[in-house]
Amino acid sequence: MSKRVAIIGIGMTKFGELWDKRYRDLITEAGADAIKDAGIDGEDIEGLYIGSMSPGLFAGQEHIGALVADYSGLSGIPATRVEAACASGGLALREAYLTIKSGAIDIVVAGGVEKMTDVSTSSAMIALMGAGDQEWEAFKGVTFPSLYALMARRHMVEYGTTIEQISQVAVKSHHNASLNPDAQFPFKVTLEQVMNSAIIADPLRLLHCSPITDGASAVVLASEEKAKELVDDPVWINGSSSATDTIALHDRKSLSRMDSTIIAGKKAYKEAKIKPRDIDFAEVHDCFSIAEILAIEGLNFCKLGDGGKITENGETEIDGRIPINPSGGLKGKGHPVGATGIAQAVEAALQLRGKAGKRQVKDAEIALIHNLGGSGATTVIHILKRN
Amino acid sequence: MSKRVAIIGIGMTKFGELWDKRYRDLITEAGADAIKDAGIDGEDIEGLYIGSMSPGLFAGQEHIGALVADYSGLSGIPATRVEAACASGGLALREAYLTIKSGAIDIVVAGGVEKMTDVSTSSAMIALMGAGDQEWEAFKGVTFPSLYALMARRHMVEYGTTIEQISQVAVKSHHNASLNPDAQFPFKVTLEQVMNSAIIADPLRLLHCSPITDGASAVVLASEEKAKELVDDPVWINGSSSATDTIALHDRKSLSRMDSTIIAGKKAYKEAKIKPRDIDFAEVHDCFSIAEILAIEGLNFCKLGDGGKITENGETEIDGRIPINPSGGLKGKGHPVGATGIAQAVEAALQLRGKAGKRQVKDAEIALIHNLGGSGATTVIHILKRN
Repeated sequence: MSKRVAIIGIGMTKFGELWDKRYRDLITEAGADAIKDAGIDGEDIEGLYIGSMSPGLFAGQEHIGALVADYSGLSGIPATRVEAACASGGLALREAYLTIKSGAIDIVVAGGVEKMTDVSTSSAMIALMGAGDQEWEAFKGVTFPSLYALMARRHMVEYGTTIEQISQVAVKSHHNASLNPDAQFPFKVTLEQVMNSAIIADPLRLLHCSPITDGASAVVLASEEKAKELVDDPVWINGSSSATDTIALHDRKSLSRMDSTIIAGKKAYKEAKIKPRDIDFAEVHDCFSIAEILAIEGLNFCKLGDGGKITENGETEIDGRIPINPSGGLKGKGHPVGATGIAQAVEAALQLRGKAGKRQVKDAEIALIHNLGGSGATTVIHILKRN
Repeated sequence: MSKRVAIIGIGMTKFGELWDKRYRDLITEAGADAIKDAGIDGEDIEGLYIGSMSPGLFAGQEHIGALVADYSGLSGIPATRVEAACASGGLALREAYLTIKSGAIDIVVAGGVEKMTDVSTSSAMIALMGAGDQEWEAFKGVTFPSLYALMARRHMVEYGTTIEQISQVAVKSHHNASLNPDAQFPFKVTLEQVMNSAIIADPLRLLHCSPITDGASAVVLASEEKAKELVDDPVWINGSSSATDTIALHDRKSLSRMDSTIIAGKKAYKEAKIKPRDIDFAEVHDCFSIAEILAIEGLNFCKLGDGGKITENGETEIDGRIPINPSGGLKGKGHPVGATGIAQAVEAALQLRGKAGKRQVKDAEIALIHNLGGSGATTVIHILKRN
């Protein structure tokens, strides 16, 4: 495993309710942007990995790899769809990375896409429950807000985490999103607004929950040799890991920590030969505000149980000790499930290039991106470093 | 790309209408069989790749990698679902192979599964059309039999292929299936029965069409070092390739040949450093009888247009010049879509070990397996060699 892999191009659609664009339009737009950003041509692309959670239920379409290759004018090249619920994008990035590592090909596009607003909200909820255990959770009427509500409640009981602390995650995310023109919700919210928003699954309220979103994202990956030849600002993937946990929440060892994140985090730090304190900022999977707290604890940015406290202290703000989700996160930027993992890579690359505008993390050199599937049955982590 | 990869264990459920088994039961059964066959323990498994086409529509379940890891008692390890319609299994095998090639891990299970009979036949047809172009084909009422009927008709017009020749594919498949105890249809059919079966999409009749099937299959892959350490009869993967074509049939350059197969075939032969004549037998994707003819032509086992003739001549029978589908193929063995590509690897490994019983291909040393997605928008090919 000596060859390095770099991100050499990035692209992303605006996130939101994009009623004038089809599933295939979204991903080809993001892909074309990434190829253009890399300064290469479509004919340079040797392979394609697409993360998408449930296009069968959202758009009646499977066979996504071939579809995207076709509509990108790239028919002929190998194309693979990867699915791990909301971690589909992160896993597509990882599979693309491993393919280059294998030596099979040198330049690969990893994309992510979901078109969620063409079906009713109840149909979307049913599709999303495919990320949990159909037989033990979905069939009983459990929804994702209720699964994360159980985790939030347990965290409050075990560690004294307050609803104010959990709410502060959303306040920060929206603040950051207000600095991101591609975000679905580019506006600030106050602690009061979060605390008074409608109850979804006690203790979680509307503004603790990420939205239903349309969007796509893409990155171009290249082998070390090609990256050096093609661009001046490659962003290196210094660590890539993935881990699983039980799909149903009731089978977990603990509800107040995310074991797949803890396992994958240790592996990624080891591969990148760094410590958590070396990370300059992270994009983590805040599908619900409590998930960000579990993530930053699992990633060892603070002790288990201290995630709420360091959020309240401002340590996770853009100019804080360990900035989390400068993009606005899933809460503020939006969460088109399959696109999210790749969108995290797009944000990280933008930051590491020093091109993140008003939300730039100062002197960012090393970033971590953390993508979660379901209630944590899959975690995918990448550690990225600027040239 | 110096390290070799081998199949060291194989497992498969019976194929058929398996009403007493759930989706998760099927794949864990096949996986456990493969691990047992390799003579290793679950704790030796470092990663999991699962091919499955449409579990969201067939079983309301996504997040398949984590689900299978969990129900196999392997939670913790990285687990990825791969989808490319009916080529999902073949592509899962390829991604598992590439992961070992990358050096990331040494022992990986590649599995495939589909549970298709828990929904109505019309719901299954809708799910399967997700393999085609939703907007240009499915929405207009096109079904897969009709897409392959167009290809059959064109082949008959261009090359003078007869319906008798196309029917002979099914006669051969059923003959071979009668020797396979795991087949869904382990009985022979006559040419007359095929020719007189109900019209599905002219010129294709019922007995030209593969069935709707439940089933799962799995193989254990290992790096060269581990394979040599663990087993005496590794089956080496000497070539792995994948290629795409337009997702919709009307955009193809030709309806009478399968370009993705031609491209992927050339790549696979090149990687394995062999010629088509070196192949001792092949498992090809006969979702419809015409598809087998297109496959054997595309793989260069005969000239374009001669597929019907060599079938009629008996050259593709088990004791013929180039035995095709000794397992019974998709037609006779059954076609649980996500499982098919891996089931081909299981059959090939069994044959190369000389353990295929009554359907054994004599002195088989090199095999090719060919898995197709949709109407040919994805082809995945592997070339396997006995130790």
